[in-house]
Amino acid sequence: MTILDIIDKKQKKQVLTKEEINFWIDGVMNGDVKDYQTSALLMAIVINGMNDDEIFYLTDAMLKSGDVIDLSSIEGIKIDKHSTGGVGDKVTPILAPLLASFGLKVAKMSGRGLGHTGGTVDKFESIPGYKIELTRDEFIKQVNDIGLAVISQSGNLVPADKKLYALRDVTSTEDSIPLIASSIMSKKIASGADYIFIDVKVGNGALMKNLADARTLAHTMVKIGSRYNKKTVCILTNMDEPLGFAIGNALEIKEVMETLKGIGPADLLELIVEMGGLIVSSTLGLDLEEAKIQCFKKINNGEAYNKFQELVERQGGKLENLHISERVVSVRTPKAGFINHIDALGLGEIARQIGAGRYTKDDIINYSVGIVLTKKVGDYVEANEELAKFYLADKDVRLNDIWDCYTIEDEQMPKKQLIYEVIK
Amino acid sequence: MTILDIIDKKQKKQVLTKEEINFWIDGVMNGDVKDYQTSALLMAIVINGMNDDEIFYLTDAMLKSGDVIDLSSIEGIKIDKHSTGGVGDKVTPILAPLLASFGLKVAKMSGRGLGHTGGTVDKFESIPGYKIELTRDEFIKQVNDIGLAVISQSGNLVPADKKLYALRDVTSTEDSIPLIASSIMSKKIASGADYIFIDVKVGNGALMKNLADARTLAHTMVKIGSRYNKKTVCILTNMDEPLGFAIGNALEIKEVMETLKGIGPADLLELIVEMGGLIVSSTLGLDLEEAKIQCFKKINNGEAYNKFQELVERQGGKLENLHISERVVSVRTPKAGFINHIDALGLGEIARQIGAGRYTKDDIINYSVGIVLTKKVGDYVEANEELAKFYLADKDVRLNDIWDCYTIEDEQMPKKQLIYEVIK
Repeated sequence: MTILDIIDKKQKKQVLTKEEINFWIDGVMNGDVKDYQTSALLMAIVINGMNDDEIFYLTDAMLKSGDVIDLSSIEGIKIDKHSTGGVGDKVTPILAPLLASFGLKVAKMSGRGLGHTGGTVDKFESIPGYKIELTRDEFIKQVNDIGLAVISQSGNLVPADKKLYALRDVTSTEDSIPLIASSIMSKKIASGADYIFIDVKVGNGALMKNLADARTLAHTMVKIGSRYNKKTVCILTNMDEPLGFAIGNALEIKEVMETLKGIGPADLLELIVEMGGLIVSSTLGLDLEEAKIQCFKKINNGEAYNKFQELVERQGGKLENLHISERVVSVRTPKAGFINHIDALGLGEIARQIGAGRYTKDDIINYSVGIVLTKKVGDYVEANEELAKFYLADKDVRLNDIWDCYTIEDEQMPKKQLIYEVIK
Repeated sequence: MTILDIIDKKQKKQVLTKEEINFWIDGVMNGDVKDYQTSALLMAIVINGMNDDEIFYLTDAMLKSGDVIDLSSIEGIKIDKHSTGGVGDKVTPILAPLLASFGLKVAKMSGRGLGHTGGTVDKFESIPGYKIELTRDEFIKQVNDIGLAVISQSGNLVPADKKLYALRDVTSTEDSIPLIASSIMSKKIASGADYIFIDVKVGNGALMKNLADARTLAHTMVKIGSRYNKKTVCILTNMDEPLGFAIGNALEIKEVMETLKGIGPADLLELIVEMGGLIVSSTLGLDLEEAKIQCFKKINNGEAYNKFQELVERQGGKLENLHISERVVSVRTPKAGFINHIDALGLGEIARQIGAGRYTKDDIINYSVGIVLTKKVGDYVEANEELAKFYLADKDVRLNDIWDCYTIEDEQMPKKQLIYEVIK
């Protein structure tokens, strides 16, 4: 068996065997397969695809390239929640305590963001004092004690995915459902949870540009999960505008707290209750509507917020010290009309420019900066009415760049639904 | 413009512009485009193809990456002949003197072979004393004086092709008509001839496995040639068995001389006369049948052979010193029957194993070794009758490997024609 034969087979749209896929990934890890060979094979996969068996073998080969976390010493049902990434997506810090307030176990290891805004880890790190790194024992103990922990990914989880991902990023081979599904699922399986819940964002600013592709990705991931006997549920949600109002790390944590207190943005609350309801109903055996009502209750009676506070305190964070920049610029609309579209990706890019995200992994995030939307899609604005507040530090924004993110028209367009469907 | 956008376009089966293709090839040359990016793009081209304009732009970008030979100081019609490569293919050393004997000019720069047996340069170098390197001035003067010169490729011809070819070789991206056509034609255009004649070999042992692909390649190359106002003619010929009897450098030169004296193998002579006739008729304005008769005459009256001798002497070679190994092993057939197939590639591989070809560019060829077929496809053999003689030096052959190259059956299968068609 040689890597040339394997590349040639995929170029001819043939099906690769388990042994061939293992040979490739082993070669990626030990250096026998060169980057230029892997990138040719990746391109052949992007164009010619993979069947379910091949995707499973690829997931499995990547999974076995590194550590697999053993959560068996945590009692109860371990939940993992993942998002394919969206602007203003602060679901994890809200959903995790909500689920824990039901007695479910959330042993969450998150990555740092290399995107428009920080990842979950960066958002928690915006809380002064929050200790993002725990030992394995501390992590397990905390989850057993209080039902949840959110730490930064440590150890050597799926190193093959890191290598492939780095190469895909510089060879235009990202756009492939088999590669995306195996990348996400290898990491989820390696993280050791029993129940995997994935928010697949759909829209211009998201990984999946259209609903059909998002649906295929979701079905693919659910099938991979089932081969590991891991219940996997995907929710397909709209990412045509930012989620909630806040974009940027400390600002998002502030919105997390508001939402957990029942005074957050309507779209964010809707999504949290839908996701929470789905997870609670299927793990605890409740009717979906009943589970959603229970989620509302846990928010309204403060249990979810208390759990969040417990988490932050246990990991050393001081919420009262959360720092938000005091240099606030109010951006106003140049004309009256209905906001028919807000370019989430565009605003995300501006958030990154002002310091809320990273361009390279060595960049340092300014947690205190960001954007808070005053208006959302569907709102009517008068001329010179406030669209958003920009919380700035050392970098400025250009008004035209911001205006370019808004489509304001005389006629109101129907607003897209937030939640498209659930695939499980 | 970024290379990622270009890769992405081709991944989506879109047409690349001239500027995009130039950007890519410039980047290959100056190192801005990395190997792993080029190999991803090559794979996208292999799978998604290129249209005629793209193939021309790629040819032209590669052509402009290096020197272009100026043959304008040679008087007369300059002919270049190329073969896509076959086992026992010794056409160039026969055809070149034949054409020169008509007053046509053959200023031939050849490459060394990195294949089963040596290339044209290696075959000439098997003649003791033959000086394969001439200065540009010596080369031009010799062609003006005697009508032909055969030297090794010098200078910096199409370096972009060398880079792409090296990468294609290790990424299973050879099998692409746009890439093959642009690779061949960029080198032919750079070589400066007026009239380009290409022998496209078809068969299991050849670059083109079937006639349909060979036809597409030929049409593609003819179209590229016409965009440079270079008359380009392709002949599609069978490579299901070795050409002639001899395989291996000095053995092939011996067969070259025999053929030029009119006592060579029938298939080789047929091909020479067909090719010679096509070139002579279209450059000198003769009727094709008349041109073929003239070719026969030039062979039978010794003019072609004399021209060969003149070439070799002028470049210092001593034909009388040609050395062929004296360790000869006769390989006999295990059973009686009709030879329905001889695996040219298989015999070529054995020839390489015994030292007639190179595995890496640093390998040293043993010019004196090789194979001479006693029997060809269509022949009937008795049990224990001689199939071939093996001329060996320090390496041995395994009888079973040789027998595996022969299909001997009770029923005679119809033999494939040698010359399929001409495309111009």
